[in-house]
Amino acid sequence: MNTFGTIFRLTSFGESHGAGIGGIIDGCPAGLRIDIEKVQLDLNRRKPGQSRITTQRDESDTVEFLSGIFEEKTTGTPIGFLVRNKDHKSSDYNNLKDVFRPSHADYSYNQKYGIRDHRGGGRSSARETIARVVGGAIAKQLLEQMGITINAYVNSVGTISVEKSYQELDLTKTEDNIVRCPDQETAEKMIALIEEAGSNHDTLGGTITCVVKGVPPGWGSPVFNKLHADLGFAMLGINAVKGFEYGSGFEGTKMYGSEHNDIFINKGGDVSTLTNHSGGIQGGISNGQDIYFKVAFKPIATLLKEQKTVDKALNETTINPKGRHDPCVLPRAVPIVEAMAALVLADHYLQDKTSRL
Amino acid sequence: MNTFGTIFRLTSFGESHGAGIGGIIDGCPAGLRIDIEKVQLDLNRRKPGQSRITTQRDESDTVEFLSGIFEEKTTGTPIGFLVRNKDHKSSDYNNLKDVFRPSHADYSYNQKYGIRDHRGGGRSSARETIARVVGGAIAKQLLEQMGITINAYVNSVGTISVEKSYQELDLTKTEDNIVRCPDQETAEKMIALIEEAGSNHDTLGGTITCVVKGVPPGWGSPVFNKLHADLGFAMLGINAVKGFEYGSGFEGTKMYGSEHNDIFINKGGDVSTLTNHSGGIQGGISNGQDIYFKVAFKPIATLLKEQKTVDKALNETTINPKGRHDPCVLPRAVPIVEAMAALVLADHYLQDKTSRL
Amino acid sequence: MNTFGTIFRLTSFGESHGAGIGGIIDGCPAGLRIDIEKVQLDLNRRKPGQSRITTQRDESDTVEFLSGIFEEKTTGTPIGFLVRNKDHKSSDYNNLKDVFRPSHADYSYNQKYGIRDHRGGGRSSARETIARVVGGAIAKQLLEQMGITINAYVNSVGTISVEKSYQELDLTKTEDNIVRCPDQETAEKMIALIEEAGSNHDTLGGTITCVVKGVPPGWGSPVFNKLHADLGFAMLGINAVKGFEYGSGFEGTKMYGSEHNDIFINKGGDVSTLTNHSGGIQGGISNGQDIYFKVAFKPIATLLKEQKTVDKALNETTINPKGRHDPCVLPRAVPIVEAMAALVLADHYLQDKTSRL
Amino acid sequence: MNTFGTIFRLTSFGESHGAGIGGIIDGCPAGLRIDIEKVQLDLNRRKPGQSRITTQRDESDTVEFLSGIFEEKTTGTPIGFLVRNKDHKSSDYNNLKDVFRPSHADYSYNQKYGIRDHRGGGRSSARETIARVVGGAIAKQLLEQMGITINAYVNSVGTISVEKSYQELDLTKTEDNIVRCPDQETAEKMIALIEEAGSNHDTLGGTITCVVKGVPPGWGSPVFNKLHADLGFAMLGINAVKGFEYGSGFEGTKMYGSEHNDIFINKGGDVSTLTNHSGGIQGGISNGQDIYFKVAFKPIATLLKEQKTVDKALNETTINPKGRHDPCVLPRAVPIVEAMAALVLADHYLQDKTSRL
Repeated sequence: MNTFGTIFRLTSFGESHGAGIGGIIDGCPAGLRIDIEKVQLDLNRRKPGQSRITTQRDESDTVEFLSGIFEEKTTGTPIGFLVRNKDHKSSDYNNLKDVFRPSHADYSYNQKYGIRDHRGGGRSSARETIARVVGGAIAKQLLEQMGITINAYVNSVGTISVEKSYQELDLTKTEDNIVRCPDQETAEKMIALIEEAGSNHDTLGGTITCVVKGVPPGWGSPVFNKLHADLGFAMLGINAVKGFEYGSGFEGTKMYGSEHNDIFINKGGDVSTLTNHSGGIQGGISNGQDIYFKVAFKPIATLLKEQKTVDKALNETTINPKGRHDPCVLPRAVPIVEAMAALVLADHYLQDKTSRL
Repeated sequence: MNTFGTIFRLTSFGESHGAGIGGIIDGCPAGLRIDIEKVQLDLNRRKPGQSRITTQRDESDTVEFLSGIFEEKTTGTPIGFLVRNKDHKSSDYNNLKDVFRPSHADYSYNQKYGIRDHRGGGRSSARETIARVVGGAIAKQLLEQMGITINAYVNSVGTISVEKSYQELDLTKTEDNIVRCPDQETAEKMIALIEEAGSNHDTLGGTITCVVKGVPPGWGSPVFNKLHADLGFAMLGINAVKGFEYGSGFEGTKMYGSEHNDIFINKGGDVSTLTNHSGGIQGGISNGQDIYFKVAFKPIATLLKEQKTVDKALNETTINPKGRHDPCVLPRAVPIVEAMAALVLADHYLQDKTSRL
Repeated sequence: MNTFGTIFRLTSFGESHGAGIGGIIDGCPAGLRIDIEKVQLDLNRRKPGQSRITTQRDESDTVEFLSGIFEEKTTGTPIGFLVRNKDHKSSDYNNLKDVFRPSHADYSYNQKYGIRDHRGGGRSSARETIARVVGGAIAKQLLEQMGITINAYVNSVGTISVEKSYQELDLTKTEDNIVRCPDQETAEKMIALIEEAGSNHDTLGGTITCVVKGVPPGWGSPVFNKLHADLGFAMLGINAVKGFEYGSGFEGTKMYGSEHNDIFINKGGDVSTLTNHSGGIQGGISNGQDIYFKVAFKPIATLLKEQKTVDKALNETTINPKGRHDPCVLPRAVPIVEAMAALVLADHYLQDKTSRL
Repeated sequence: MNTFGTIFRLTSFGESHGAGIGGIIDGCPAGLRIDIEKVQLDLNRRKPGQSRITTQRDESDTVEFLSGIFEEKTTGTPIGFLVRNKDHKSSDYNNLKDVFRPSHADYSYNQKYGIRDHRGGGRSSARETIARVVGGAIAKQLLEQMGITINAYVNSVGTISVEKSYQELDLTKTEDNIVRCPDQETAEKMIALIEEAGSNHDTLGGTITCVVKGVPPGWGSPVFNKLHADLGFAMLGINAVKGFEYGSGFEGTKMYGSEHNDIFINKGGDVSTLTNHSGGIQGGISNGQDIYFKVAFKPIATLLKEQKTVDKALNETTINPKGRHDPCVLPRAVPIVEAMAALVLADHYLQDKTSRL
């Protein structure tokens, strides 16, 4: 299934070396003013070659909207879009046709489908996330007009981690450095670490924190589709993600209930909480506090160094990829995390409209 | 939405103090022999009052199957089932009608629906997981006949944690103690900690590890419905869950790619891997290795001690719940984690049947 | 799939001779006052034994609601319900275990599932429509408060047909006779025909017309889920239905466009139309005029006379069913048609809430 | 919702005067050899300007596949496609911006969305069916390799009707004349009638019959998604369709059960039936006999003559459309009916794969 969402739905298509990446956004309410430049801006934050610590591949990633927007407004009909791929030298990948790259999707795809487009990873390429960034950028514009903001940032790269909580950071500084970490000092250490890993032909993982402000109480669902379950599902569907936690997360499991409970208070006539270990979600439904969560990304599997593996015929062999690849995907993953969060929230906004008389 | 799954689907209903908890399992293939006693066994592992460290509420939780099984076999038609609730003294909850318990769903429900069944938490009660355990027990029987086993265990309670990996543990020992930790020495420490917290009217969280063996390569989906995304979604939908990680998880983000990659090898004529940081899933699709993941549970929010809060009219007040509640849900959550994993895997088993000619 | 609807959803379970028929209504908005007696009233209109022209089987068909309603109002959580079956002498059906009844589902079920509950038709029994009537009765109450009425009636039985259009009939008279035809004179002819067929151990088909008043303009969907496509889907899913038409229907295909087009007029400040060949739906979306459609039911396949057939082993044989069966299902199908229409409309009401900013 | 199907799914986008019409086919099994020329052939059967009785608009309607096909085979990943629109003189439609064309979707769209792309009907244009023809052409190729054939033909135009049943016709002759009626004599009368209506600036409706051969017993679903209910839903979602019947249809309601029942026989070792009033479907599941059904199309609403109507401000006005329009859509609708039937059957083929162990 290549469709995400229940009412606000994104269906995506496309492979790394095919004609392009595209999708259909269905269920976006009519009458929403769309700023296409903002969509392109998020694509630019995702695209390769944007800084010295990302891959130097040259891809312009320009989006063309094909339907659903008329005189700058959504019409309620599906929004089709397409981002053409550049011409690739797919022959560069010929040597990968029958060999399984370690920790890639090559072997598991092969077992599932009996056939695969081996060029650039085919459908398993993170290039697919272009569709999500476009879908998310539309969802963001829907949320923005309700005063909802979504800000993600790089919280750790390898063992270098921001020591402050998001409340202590100025999230408007995230785009001030190329690693997208709002803590300038930590950002510099991260950049140095990435450059070092790159020069060693090695790769790094890390974590991204995402903060959503302005969600009113009442969005979400009590049982399977708890708001955080949908957010976790969205994040775990991003390439290279290995974990998700919200609010107090894994650390919170070590606390006593008497420490962990968020006491309700009357804050100027509104229900608020003294602490926010709940991460803005209680019983699967937003409670009006900030929603925040953390996403774990593994070190990228494509190393520019020799590794052992086997081929389709089960012979042992080695691969030694060439080309231009990211030593660390975290900076480029920031807009993807935001996009997926926006898709989930736009969907729950619409779902919530049907929950009461 | 109270439906879980795409082809193998569970729809659940029921509140804590209503007539009962039940559900409909749809899409289970015809011809599967069902052992109803095994279903009841998993319900017994979940039910309250089963040991001195769980709540002493007396609920028999006996399942009645209403359809879909004929002469002990599934017929391909929907399997309806019902577990009646015991008669509750709902009046015990009258004092909670207009007050929001800290870190419960009371406030967020109220904001969403404008109405709520306050008795025993209503739909937000973990009693709803009865439906999941029944659904999962049917899914397990489907998977068993393919040689797939699912074993969860308590990995940590508060700050007490099993130090061994699952490979070093004997998972057949999980049911040997009341805390469901296969490491006997750690189990005893956990039990002592839970008893201490209980006597302090406090509560504890912890983590559960789940191990799935025998899944063939090829189950899963490349994009949104990656196998681990569906597993994470399933786990995050369980009451009190705050995080999910699979394979190397959050710790893996600190490794270099050259350490983290799982090298493919030829193991007796089959493709295998030297390490399993991938947790048995690559590109969202199983690769034939063990699938393992960890789930974080917060300390339960119901404390048997006085806490401050506000009521509907925004007046500050205090609550001081009485009754019988678990100081730690982890032991009873083990079969729920297994059940949700089984539902996801049964669904992907069926989805996979349609992926090739 | 045993689920109907997108937002307002009914999932049903149950077999003719199992424990009972039930279902789950999910997505009903919170805060709707439910009159359970009205639900039972529609069940009574559907149940056997209600008049001398229906089967004399004695089934009380009393509904028990299990969840989702609290203090007479919906809570937004799923509404589970169950109608217990009477104890059946299933042994009466033993002779049908290995034989395929003509124009029943016996053979096709057998080929699909390799197993079937042969007792009373199992899942293929029209007894399953109990779940639809309950779901529809809840949907009706949602629609009623918006002033929407749904009235179906028997338009023809065999070759006896009402000659008037629905506009010429007084639809409040439908329940005045046992055949549920608001034209008293035609009703008498229908009853005579049914009694004659019954005495010949034969059966009759016919058509039901359904009229929906009060739907505001704007409900529906432009492409696949056109309002009439969802209505048609709903009707064709009822047992024994062979055809569906709305507005001018099949007869309209013989008209010229210049005759068929419905001219828009200003009617007291509202957009209205001079004629209503469109049946209240244009481009798949309601236009505020009456919605009306017709449903064709084949003569029921269960004859109380000897018929040739084959058994599982492909031997030629005969069957000669005994027992109590309807010679004509039309009168009892009236509430089923209304229920399915209500389910579709309640769903589109909720869908429409998300279509604009 | 702009998605059709459960496992084999088509999502479509596009407006009449936007950039183009396209879609995504998801769930097509991997390994299917695709002949793109056959897809184009069906598009050519649908396109305007193909004969003297269709609109003379010049649209090449060339499909570009964007993903999901690699080395001429499906890969199991989504198949994106796009058919660019020709540049339109949208200014021709400026006079329709604020006026509601009779029996079009103008008014109902306006009420639903509060905004509409008025150019050429926008999303309500039958140009959207391009996406269905492409999706259906892929589905056809999946079915073809199982020996399943789908043949639709024009059965009536206005009052001119084929008097023979499909069994008496040679369906290989359908493409031999421009009206797509396999009965040459009737075809000539239909063509004359269409030419006469065209010269009068009037339009005609009619019926299409569709015959599916080779479906094995066992496809379908017992309750809501009966095979004929899904077929009816598919057909009623086609622009201008007003009715659907299968097998004996509306005429069958006039028969006695003893005439209507299809007696099972042993035909050379296979279960067959003496008659086929069931239209190849019993209890919602195919029984191995021919599936056949009939679809009613209203006369097209766009007349090239003056008609009264109202505008947005509720003023009475007249419209007098210019341009090139079909006097009768039936010939061009034949491939659309086939395409929708193919989508339904491909989906049920895949669904059936999961119904048994």
